[in-house]
Amino acid sequence: MRNFDEHNITEAVLGRVRNASDPRVRQVSEAVVRHLHKFIREVDPTFEEWQQAIQFLTDTGKMCSDTRQEFILLSDTLGASMLVDAINHRLPEGATETTVLGPFYVDNPPVAELGDDISGGAEGIPMYCHGIVRDSGGKPIAGAIVDTWHSDDEGYYDVQHYDEGGTISMRARFQTDENGEFRFWSIVPNYYPIPDDGPVGKMLGAQGRHPYRPAHVHFMISAENCEKLVTHVFIAGDKYIDSDVVFGVKESLIKALDHQHAGTAPDGREMDKDYAILNYDFVLSPGK
Amino acid sequence: MRNFDEHNITEAVLGRVRNASDPRVRQVSEAVVRHLHKFIREVDPTFEEWQQAIQFLTDTGKMCSDTRQEFILLSDTLGASMLVDAINHRLPEGATETTVLGPFYVDNPPVAELGDDISGGAEGIPMYCHGIVRDSGGKPIAGAIVDTWHSDDEGYYDVQHYDEGGTISMRARFQTDENGEFRFWSIVPNYYPIPDDGPVGKMLGAQGRHPYRPAHVHFMISAENCEKLVTHVFIAGDKYIDSDVVFGVKESLIKALDHQHAGTAPDGREMDKDYAILNYDFVLSPGK
Repeated sequence: MRNFDEHNITEAVLGRVRNASDPRVRQVSEAVVRHLHKFIREVDPTFEEWQQAIQFLTDTGKMCSDTRQEFILLSDTLGASMLVDAINHRLPEGATETTVLGPFYVDNPPVAELGDDISGGAEGIPMYCHGIVRDSGGKPIAGAIVDTWHSDDEGYYDVQHYDEGGTISMRARFQTDENGEFRFWSIVPNYYPIPDDGPVGKMLGAQGRHPYRPAHVHFMISAENCEKLVTHVFIAGDKYIDSDVVFGVKESLIKALDHQHAGTAPDGREMDKDYAILNYDFVLSPGK
Repeated sequence: MRNFDEHNITEAVLGRVRNASDPRVRQVSEAVVRHLHKFIREVDPTFEEWQQAIQFLTDTGKMCSDTRQEFILLSDTLGASMLVDAINHRLPEGATETTVLGPFYVDNPPVAELGDDISGGAEGIPMYCHGIVRDSGGKPIAGAIVDTWHSDDEGYYDVQHYDEGGTISMRARFQTDENGEFRFWSIVPNYYPIPDDGPVGKMLGAQGRHPYRPAHVHFMISAENCEKLVTHVFIAGDKYIDSDVVFGVKESLIKALDHQHAGTAPDGREMDKDYAILNYDFVLSPGK
């Protein structure tokens, strides 16, 4: 076929991608073409604008590294990640709600012992974080794998300091004990801007949006015969709790810190300064 | 706002991007969000599929370099480039039709003299290419800038050989003479696969598509008070003329080679082997 114009090209492209042997590839390809062409027809871009779009995507790809995933940031800030999360989690009653993975998860985090301090000596308010992991029947799960990671007192993740010689901190993997409990020490995380020195930061600026996320602790929890849970616990009272740049906040995931004076902590540790306790129990959905 | 779910998140994201101060940024941002979310709702991706999509875009960005633009290839192979071309070129009667720029244009090509051989000594059938550039009133344009670039006898562009020490060839910038004519020698280009060792090549494979473009010579022509013309001249009879992977072929841009025996060429050059003539006249639209 020749002589493609604005009226017949979509059908022509659909005709080509229908040759895909895998039905899912065919379905997704057709949807990409239809929606992309509809978008172009609606927006009616000039050549220069289309070139800018190409350059934006190129810059976004170039920004990606082992410790920075700019396309995840783009997906997050356009609400796409939370939408994908929502359609994949029509959860049974009582199961802990999910939220975005975010761009700062690192595969194979360091394994730590229950009760360890994972702050790496970072400054801030000490935080004792603990909770119980249960199955949907309410039974504590022993040996569940609990990955956690969070920002420091200034809102930076460890990976954002690697360039300046920083090492792994505020990031670890635990295993729950026979009572299904995990516990560790760290510091209270702070709200923070998502990395905004790249294309996504420029986009947010152009859209008149702030780049902040309210303070939270990430959790990824897995156990036999259960769905892997990816979520955060948000710290109540944060100034950005109602305007999270990635739309990740859910009421059920907000928890107040329990502020304590210096003294004996719940795990017997003697604290010579004030500290906070973050307690959150998780319920995993049954595996599919 | 909190508690985003699959029903309210699109409106929430639209509410944020409406803060854009530039009305065009606002319009495009809203359209991106609406179409992207519609696409996600239709396709209903699993987490793993969404992760694959993120990885595909990341890999596409990583593949881009000074001599390789994988996002343009993606836009081309999804018919998006030709659609953008079509909606930007509702041309006046008689003007030469346009087609995609493609990923192999290089800024500031070497300036050559009319009649020069730009083949760089590449093997193949010699080709004498000439034509007249006219305005929409039919008047020849002296001093028009004519950029041309094309593949070699095996279907490769010069930039694809840079890694192995190749240099600029089959690529030049001319100025039309007082009669509006351009003329140069090169070799007859061949059909070729778009670079298919990257993400776009994988996509085409999954979609059951071949990666070929029919043989053509690129032209980008500009002159005062005229619209810049970006087009190709396709060589008639090519086996891929009806299945161009980037949907670029238009009937009016197809021209047959005029095959000649050794002897005196139209510009007086003595040819000791058979050669071909490609003659195409261009008509530029009035500038806006």
